[in-house]
Amino acid sequence: MTRELIQENDVLKLLKSHKSIRKFKETIVEKDVIRTIVEAAQGASTSSFLQAYSIISIHDPEKRQLLAEWSGDQKYVASAPEFLVFCADLHRLNLACSKHGLPYEAGYTEAFIIATVDAALAAQNAMIAAESLGLGGVYIGGIRNNPDKISDLLKLPDEVYPVFGMCLGYPDHNPDVKERLPISAVFHEETYKTPDEKEMDAYDERIRAYYIERTKGKKRESWTESVGTKIANETRPHMKGYLESKKLNQK
Amino acid sequence: MTRELIQENDVLKLLKSHKSIRKFKETIVEKDVIRTIVEAAQGASTSSFLQAYSIISIHDPEKRQLLAEWSGDQKYVASAPEFLVFCADLHRLNLACSKHGLPYEAGYTEAFIIATVDAALAAQNAMIAAESLGLGGVYIGGIRNNPDKISDLLKLPDEVYPVFGMCLGYPDHNPDVKERLPISAVFHEETYKTPDEKEMDAYDERIRAYYIERTKGKKRESWTESVGTKIANETRPHMKGYLESKKLNQK
Repeated sequence: MTRELIQENDVLKLLKSHKSIRKFKETIVEKDVIRTIVEAAQGASTSSFLQAYSIISIHDPEKRQLLAEWSGDQKYVASAPEFLVFCADLHRLNLACSKHGLPYEAGYTEAFIIATVDAALAAQNAMIAAESLGLGGVYIGGIRNNPDKISDLLKLPDEVYPVFGMCLGYPDHNPDVKERLPISAVFHEETYKTPDEKEMDAYDERIRAYYIERTKGKKRESWTESVGTKIANETRPHMKGYLESKKLNQK
Repeated sequence: MTRELIQENDVLKLLKSHKSIRKFKETIVEKDVIRTIVEAAQGASTSSFLQAYSIISIHDPEKRQLLAEWSGDQKYVASAPEFLVFCADLHRLNLACSKHGLPYEAGYTEAFIIATVDAALAAQNAMIAAESLGLGGVYIGGIRNNPDKISDLLKLPDEVYPVFGMCLGYPDHNPDVKERLPISAVFHEETYKTPDEKEMDAYDERIRAYYIERTKGKKRESWTESVGTKIANETRPHMKGYLESKKLNQK
C-alpha cells in the first residue's frame, strides 16, 4: 500500500523533477501568480515564527541589467519575466524589539543562520509553488558576487542581506533532471559516514557521461572534478567583510 | 483561468497548510517512506550542483534521549517515530578536491552559506514530501543549543555542522495554521520597504487574539512582543566559536 501511495503521488513527482530553467517564453507572469507564489513561500516553516526574510521583486529594466551584470553576466537575470531576491531579514525583528523596549543586540552568527535558513525555506516553497503552476526557474547565488552594490540598489537596511535571487517564468527549454548523488552518500544512519569510494566512482562516471552527452564532448568532468573546481574557486572572500558591514555574522 | 488553476492546485494547498506537528501516533514510518522523503530532499535545487548537505537518521533510543535533552528538553525529539538531522556538509567537497589534487581552503563564510542553504532547501523538500504522504513534522533549531555535543555524538567531521533536526511521524493532533505576516511586510517591489505600522499593529492584535484563544489566556503576546522576546534571548552566542572549531565561517 505504501508503495502505491508513493507511486501515485504527484507532489513527489514534482519534487523529484526539478531542473534549473534559464530560457523563458516571453509570457508575462501575472501578478496573481506572483502573489500566490509569495503566499506559498510564507507558508513554509520559520524558526520560532520569526519570519526573518523578505522577498523583493525587480521589474525595472535598468535595475535588472545591473543585477545581471553584478551576478556574473547571467543574461537571464535581465530577461526572465520575473526576478525575486530572497533576503535574510533581521531588521524587522530589530524594529519589533524597539517597539517594546526589548534589549536587542545585532550581529550574532546564530541570528544570521536563523534568517538565512528562513529565507531558504521560503524560497524552496516558492520554487515548488511556481513549478506546480507550470513555471520554471533557477536560483541565482551569483548575487553574492556583489552584495554591497545590490544592497545599495535595493536599499537594504542593516541586518538584511540578499541570500540569492530567483528567475521565474514559463520554460522555453526542457533540460534533463540531473542525477543526484547516490542516496548512501547523503543519507546516514545513526552516525556520519564517509561516502563509499566505489559508489562515488561509479557516480562520477555517470555524471561525466551526462556532461559529455549534454555538451557534445566540450565538458568531460566527473562530479568530483566539477564540484572540486567550483568550491575551490567560488569562495567569494568578500562575504565575511560585507556581512559584518551589515551588522551580520559578527559574533 | 489563472485564478481557477490556482484554486484547484493541491500542491499550493499543501504548501499553505503547514503546521508544526509535535504529537505523533506510534505508527512506525516505514523505511520505504523515509527513503522516498530523502530522495525528494535530494531533488531540491543545490548551488552549482555541490549537494553540500547530509541527512542523518537517528533511531537509537539513548541517542534520541540525549538529543532531546540537548535540544532544550523537547520530548518529541525522543519520541517521534523518525528524527532526521540536516547537516551542512563541506567535508565531501574537500574529499572531492583531494581526489584530484585541487587546491582547497576550508573556512570561507561563503562556503558556509552555500552549505547551510543547500541543507535548508533539501529539508524543505523533505518536509513537503512527508506532508504529501500524510505525515507531519517540526524543525528542531534547538539542536544548535549544543552543537559540539551533537557533533561528537553523530561523529561529524570538520566542515560538517548540524543546521537543524526534523521530527517526523503520523500526526496525533491538528493545530491551526498560524496566520503569517501581511504579504506587504515580506514582499517588496523594486526596493526594500519598512512594514506599514498600521498593518503591523492589526497583525499584532490578530496574533495576540490567536495566542489568547489557543492558550486559554496564558499567552497574551502580540507578534512583535513574542518574536522580540525570542530574538533577544535566542542568540546562542556559542555558535561562532563552535563553527570556527569545525573550520566553518572563519574568513
